[in-house]
Amino acid sequence: MTSLHRQFAVGASHLFLQRKRNPPVGARPGTLVPAPDSPPPVIRLMRYDADHLEERTIEDVGEIAGILERGEGVSWIDVQGFGDEATLERLREIFDLHPLAIEDAINTPQRPKAEIYENFYLYITRMVRLGEHREICSEQVSIFLGKSYVLTLQEQYGDVFDPVRKRIRQSEGMIRKRGADYLAYAIIDAVLDGYYPVIEMLGDRLHELEEAILERPSPAGMRRIHTIRHELLALRRAVWPQREAVNTLMREESDLVSPIVRQYLRDCYDHAVQASDTIETFRELAASLMDLYLSSLSQRTNEVMKVLTIMASIFIPLTFLAGIYGMNFDYMPALHIWWAYPALLVVMFLIAMGMVVFFRLKGWIGRS
Amino acid sequence: MTSLHRQFAVGASHLFLQRKRNPPVGARPGTLVPAPDSPPPVIRLMRYDADHLEERTIEDVGEIAGILERGEGVSWIDVQGFGDEATLERLREIFDLHPLAIEDAINTPQRPKAEIYENFYLYITRMVRLGEHREICSEQVSIFLGKSYVLTLQEQYGDVFDPVRKRIRQSEGMIRKRGADYLAYAIIDAVLDGYYPVIEMLGDRLHELEEAILERPSPAGMRRIHTIRHELLALRRAVWPQREAVNTLMREESDLVSPIVRQYLRDCYDHAVQASDTIETFRELAASLMDLYLSSLSQRTNEVMKVLTIMASIFIPLTFLAGIYGMNFDYMPALHIWWAYPALLVVMFLIAMGMVVFFRLKGWIGRS
Amino acid sequence: MTSLHRQFAVGASHLFLQRKRNPPVGARPGTLVPAPDSPPPVIRLMRYDADHLEERTIEDVGEIAGILERGEGVSWIDVQGFGDEATLERLREIFDLHPLAIEDAINTPQRPKAEIYENFYLYITRMVRLGEHREICSEQVSIFLGKSYVLTLQEQYGDVFDPVRKRIRQSEGMIRKRGADYLAYAIIDAVLDGYYPVIEMLGDRLHELEEAILERPSPAGMRRIHTIRHELLALRRAVWPQREAVNTLMREESDLVSPIVRQYLRDCYDHAVQASDTIETFRELAASLMDLYLSSLSQRTNEVMKVLTIMASIFIPLTFLAGIYGMNFDYMPALHIWWAYPALLVVMFLIAMGMVVFFRLKGWIGRS
Amino acid sequence: MTSLHRQFAVGASHLFLQRKRNPPVGARPGTLVPAPDSPPPVIRLMRYDADHLEERTIEDVGEIAGILERGEGVSWIDVQGFGDEATLERLREIFDLHPLAIEDAINTPQRPKAEIYENFYLYITRMVRLGEHREICSEQVSIFLGKSYVLTLQEQYGDVFDPVRKRIRQSEGMIRKRGADYLAYAIIDAVLDGYYPVIEMLGDRLHELEEAILERPSPAGMRRIHTIRHELLALRRAVWPQREAVNTLMREESDLVSPIVRQYLRDCYDHAVQASDTIETFRELAASLMDLYLSSLSQRTNEVMKVLTIMASIFIPLTFLAGIYGMNFDYMPALHIWWAYPALLVVMFLIAMGMVVFFRLKGWIGRS
Amino acid sequence: MTSLHRQFAVGASHLFLQRKRNPPVGARPGTLVPAPDSPPPVIRLMRYDADHLEERTIEDVGEIAGILERGEGVSWIDVQGFGDEATLERLREIFDLHPLAIEDAINTPQRPKAEIYENFYLYITRMVRLGEHREICSEQVSIFLGKSYVLTLQEQYGDVFDPVRKRIRQSEGMIRKRGADYLAYAIIDAVLDGYYPVIEMLGDRLHELEEAILERPSPAGMRRIHTIRHELLALRRAVWPQREAVNTLMREESDLVSPIVRQYLRDCYDHAVQASDTIETFRELAASLMDLYLSSLSQRTNEVMKVLTIMASIFIPLTFLAGIYGMNFDYMPALHIWWAYPALLVVMFLIAMGMVVFFRLKGWIGRS
Repeated sequence: MTSLHRQFAVGASHLFLQRKRNPPVGARPGTLVPAPDSPPPVIRLMRYDADHLEERTIEDVGEIAGILERGEGVSWIDVQGFGDEATLERLREIFDLHPLAIEDAINTPQRPKAEIYENFYLYITRMVRLGEHREICSEQVSIFLGKSYVLTLQEQYGDVFDPVRKRIRQSEGMIRKRGADYLAYAIIDAVLDGYYPVIEMLGDRLHELEEAILERPSPAGMRRIHTIRHELLALRRAVWPQREAVNTLMREESDLVSPIVRQYLRDCYDHAVQASDTIETFRELAASLMDLYLSSLSQRTNEVMKVLTIMASIFIPLTFLAGIYGMNFDYMPALHIWWAYPALLVVMFLIAMGMVVFFRLKGWIGRS
Repeated sequence: MTSLHRQFAVGASHLFLQRKRNPPVGARPGTLVPAPDSPPPVIRLMRYDADHLEERTIEDVGEIAGILERGEGVSWIDVQGFGDEATLERLREIFDLHPLAIEDAINTPQRPKAEIYENFYLYITRMVRLGEHREICSEQVSIFLGKSYVLTLQEQYGDVFDPVRKRIRQSEGMIRKRGADYLAYAIIDAVLDGYYPVIEMLGDRLHELEEAILERPSPAGMRRIHTIRHELLALRRAVWPQREAVNTLMREESDLVSPIVRQYLRDCYDHAVQASDTIETFRELAASLMDLYLSSLSQRTNEVMKVLTIMASIFIPLTFLAGIYGMNFDYMPALHIWWAYPALLVVMFLIAMGMVVFFRLKGWIGRS
Repeated sequence: MTSLHRQFAVGASHLFLQRKRNPPVGARPGTLVPAPDSPPPVIRLMRYDADHLEERTIEDVGEIAGILERGEGVSWIDVQGFGDEATLERLREIFDLHPLAIEDAINTPQRPKAEIYENFYLYITRMVRLGEHREICSEQVSIFLGKSYVLTLQEQYGDVFDPVRKRIRQSEGMIRKRGADYLAYAIIDAVLDGYYPVIEMLGDRLHELEEAILERPSPAGMRRIHTIRHELLALRRAVWPQREAVNTLMREESDLVSPIVRQYLRDCYDHAVQASDTIETFRELAASLMDLYLSSLSQRTNEVMKVLTIMASIFIPLTFLAGIYGMNFDYMPALHIWWAYPALLVVMFLIAMGMVVFFRLKGWIGRS
Repeated sequence: MTSLHRQFAVGASHLFLQRKRNPPVGARPGTLVPAPDSPPPVIRLMRYDADHLEERTIEDVGEIAGILERGEGVSWIDVQGFGDEATLERLREIFDLHPLAIEDAINTPQRPKAEIYENFYLYITRMVRLGEHREICSEQVSIFLGKSYVLTLQEQYGDVFDPVRKRIRQSEGMIRKRGADYLAYAIIDAVLDGYYPVIEMLGDRLHELEEAILERPSPAGMRRIHTIRHELLALRRAVWPQREAVNTLMREESDLVSPIVRQYLRDCYDHAVQASDTIETFRELAASLMDLYLSSLSQRTNEVMKVLTIMASIFIPLTFLAGIYGMNFDYMPALHIWWAYPALLVVMFLIAMGMVVFFRLKGWIGRS
Repeated sequence: MTSLHRQFAVGASHLFLQRKRNPPVGARPGTLVPAPDSPPPVIRLMRYDADHLEERTIEDVGEIAGILERGEGVSWIDVQGFGDEATLERLREIFDLHPLAIEDAINTPQRPKAEIYENFYLYITRMVRLGEHREICSEQVSIFLGKSYVLTLQEQYGDVFDPVRKRIRQSEGMIRKRGADYLAYAIIDAVLDGYYPVIEMLGDRLHELEEAILERPSPAGMRRIHTIRHELLALRRAVWPQREAVNTLMREESDLVSPIVRQYLRDCYDHAVQASDTIETFRELAASLMDLYLSSLSQRTNEVMKVLTIMASIFIPLTFLAGIYGMNFDYMPALHIWWAYPALLVVMFLIAMGMVVFFRLKGWIGRS
């Protein structure tokens, strides 16, 4: 039960995570309100072109301004942890981010979306992955795409971007020959790829549940269906708007995203559609499982009732007969006839057999 | 139970509040029909530009005409209470409001909407907040946006605009440097921000209910689910049309709303979408909880039936046997054999054990 | 029960009223087939301009041609009752109505719609009002709008237009200063206003039902939910297409409807949307009530079962024990020990107490 | 039960009739595969203009070519029965039909649709009517509309076009003065008019069912609801695409359909919309009836349980008491006190009364 | 039960087959990841024009380049089995396929879609057919359409294209006279035709289930409904996107698909719509069957309860009476009256009859 509860709690936390932290009263829009438990920011830089690769952790935010000015190559600045407001404010200045844009990135959670600003694109997405205990972890990632940089922001440590990093480190990889837009695509694709293991895990659970319910419907099964529905709802809320967001990026006429990368984004779009299709199918399957469960339960109650009814219907009349001849009337002639007792036993046996035949005919005995 | 009933009543009043007060028979359109329990109007003025701030209560409506004529700065005239028709009529004249516009503002409730008139915009919205007992209070606010003024009208005292007022009072705030359109945006944003605590409260209640039902399904739980559904329906009706209304403001080509403020309105739009998304998710969750509740109930009925069936199936046959040997026939040989009594007891014990084994095999005893 | 049945029957008649009367076989389209129970036509004229008002009943249909020719002012010809085909045919000729248009008006019921013909507009709507016993009465009204006239046709006597007539009689009313299009608007508005009392009545009934079911679920409650759903379905069918119909009038570029009246029609549109919103909400509420009802019923069955199980589980074993010592074996040593009887009573008491404690632990006694 | 089964089977055959007969393997598209049970074709000609009418059965298909060449007037060639492939092939040649068009007409069933070919329009529709036993019969009718002819094809004998034929026979009818497009309209209209009696019949059955379930829910009622749902599904599938099909005809800019006939087609469109509206409403009503049925059943089970619980709760404790004093202990002092027996009877009576009062308080006795 | 389980498992495997095989970590997009159990590729060539036909198996992939260069005629290269990556890579080079295109074809499963590349079209579809045990087999087929070739790729051996091959072999067939676009159409059409037998099989199963449930609702029936729902979900996911995909092909302005073939594709579109319509109808029918099943179950539980209640209500009071006169009080005057015993029997008989009459009046006996 405990593991069930943990699972359940995870589902719940997912769903209720859309808990907006309001800026302090009187604050102007654009006020940054990072989560109180967000760790101190760690900033990692990957800077590359076809021939060179620079990868390191940045200690002083101010450095970034210099890097951006140098101009050549693509820079990926990856910021994890919002625990220091000064750093965030500094980032806003260096990249010249619109107050609403940085607010959307910091004041999580936001609905996934793509927004087009004058000097950059903002793509807000929700990353999911399986945690240590196969629970679903979910976090908002904000991707700022500029001419020669990609800036990613997330609240907690840990991401699903290692495949992207490995591809950058391979000097012969296509990613090294392309611009910041291709990097942004690779990151978005990695986020969407991260949904598949989660969806598969839910599919496996549904499959196990299906077999468990076919075998024996239990209250625990019911709760697990509810938990899965819960989690599917949360996933759907995360995936659905990403279709629209990728579409916005694809459609926008702009210099920031090249036509070639737009073709790759179409692939992302297909993945988002496929993921939400699968989630919808699982939702319908879960609903069908619920019906199956309820009907199995009704079926079992029906069977319990049949056993009770058969037992009671056979023995209650017999007990009544025994009660009759247990009465103490002075004048009960049958009591004094020697064959009355065995005769009564035979009658009782015939009544019992009659009831059994009756129930067989009704199909309550001997057939399922 | 009483607190439940109060809660419930609140939900109901919300839902049924769309009770249109028809103008008296024979009245032309544009007739004002304020609610009979509306208190006398209190008019507050905030008038500001980057350097000055004037904040006071206006006793004589006529004064406003003079203020509007002076021209410079932004004036926020906030009218609460419709208890005096003469005042309302006077306001209509001063601001030169279209009869249908003022009718929509006074004859509450209306569906949230934005309407474009020649000399002003009318934005009708529904403000919600948590009352003293954490019940949901809801009220219509009508926002008239003109060149240099914002006029807000509401039926009862009390609002969610204090953050806006505080920002105006801070001389360095951005709001002081911008026009009436930004003020209107700030007010609309404050209304939408007001939905979050209410939605969160419902989320918390759903979460508690979920745990309560997992622990022990009770009729009170069922009623609470119904109440929450009720309230979610009411919230949905309030939020949904606001998406469309904000959209109308954003799209309209006009001098009254500057491009910069339109970008801010996009943020409002996102908030409205996020709020309605969350409400939809809660509605599905509530439906799933209902299923969980019903299945728990079926499960429990099933268990009750099992206990009954087991008790009855074990003891009814035994009682019958005891009844047999309680009969008063003269010729019952078994009665006179000394080991018959202990033998019968043993037989009875074996029958009882047989039934227990049978029920164990069926899984009714010893497994959940 | 009788009042329930009457109510129910009303709901049913509403729903099935879409019973098309086919023209006799072989008839060409445009054949008029008035309802057989339609009373003889009564024709009322209101003819007015800003200064004059003429109001009377027209006995001879031919008169109308003359009135229309006179040209000045606005004429409202209100025809109630289709009991005389010659009159209807004469009307068609005088107003030069397209065969399909007059057919739609006479061969009720039609789906509400607006149709644009060359020389007139046809607006078909469905009027509802509460009858004497607070049952819902519904009837089709067809509004023909020409340059200087409005022709309204309905099958039975009785309408919701008295407020419009009163406004016409007031010489200072706005309606007197405007054209036929404003009159048509006023009539359409009166029809839509007529939905509010009906919707409110259903809202009140839902509210009562809600409280009744919270108190005690009864089969009558179930039937009343069904009846309300029935009526909401009928109302929805009537309101929904009116949105589209008003929209058609608003959008159509034409001389017949002036821009000012189009603004007023926008208000009608809002009312139609608000009405259908409320109906949808009520439908969802009714569905939620159904769930509440069913769960209450399950809860009650569960409670009944518990009482039975507790009674049976306590007394069946005790009765068995009593049965044991009621047997007539010669050798039952316990029967002859003086303390056996009280001891047995004590044992029985302990068993009963044990069962009570068991059921308390299971939560079946002493908690709800 | 038999009539129910027949009814049911009819519903099923309807639904599963979308059983596509595939052309033999290796056949090119355009291969004709008429139903094996289709009778030999009967070809009827109606050829008319304002003054003349020729009506006869055509024995030799080749004749038609000559008729078409003559040019003047409108020819309606009505082919019923596909039992002879040579005839069909000949028709294809004479009318110069596209292979896909004739394939759609012959290889029934197809989804209703309108298709625009170069030299003709193809309108595929589904005709329904009530059979002898008031069962629903349904068949595909394909209407080819050319410049001066209408060709209708259907698989079995029997149609709903007699009203159209009668109108053609009346020399003064409008249909005689108009072209082939008006004839096609008249046929489409007759098909749509044919839905009304069927819909009405289902409405009547729903109404009867409603009353039957209010009176006494029976398993037969449940099956009848299922059958009606079945039939409504089939009707919906037939009507829904006809809206789109009529719309295609109305929208298409072409010489084949004159503007006047387009106005008449708008009327057809309204009828199709009205029919599908009614079907949707009936579907919702049937779903509500299902709920009503299930809740009635639960209610009845609840009542049965109450009777059992009341009987058992009153008599089981009393029987136990009787059992106590039926024991054979030597030392049972109460047995020898003369007033013990009447006292016990009084106690038993009091206990029984106590239980009755308890159940009255719980509302199980004396209230519904 | 075993056949049921196999059936069920098949349904499940269908649904969960959307299990994406991710490329190895660090791989660039375009990495091919064929299923590990895919057999070695078998490549078949059909090359034809109106006069010639060449049909053979290709052993060496390199050969294809030469064939394509020769230019005249249409070549169909059919690749089944992805078990050799080198072959796949070689194919990519020969046909100059975009990395994303070949990735979509190899890394199954993908959602059905049509994609327009510069030098070819990619049409991904899902082929279904009935296996040996009438289970549903499903596989992805990717169709590349170039100027003079069609390349089809699928993971496992076996397809539904034999009718197409037969038509190519017939020298007089239309397919021999047309280009590669017509061949692609014929293949797409064959895939869609393959859905009909599967849909029909499900329709037959639903029909059988319907009759089985009307006869006797069993838990196996419930599971079969669930399985069918499962399979319908899977089919829907496969068919639905094909409508969109065919539409993309039809709409695209391009040289690759001629206008004549576009007309044929319209026919494919109609088939896809018809198939998804039927699937939707079956889904609703399955839902209605579920209701029917549950209500039958409730009905049966109700009947079981009635039998129990009737038996218990008749005999429990009688047993109590017998218990009374079985007590051993010294002073029970009735015991010594000679007519008391027969009188009691008469009273018991009357009570039993009274109960029977009571239950008849309630309709529990003698009516269903």
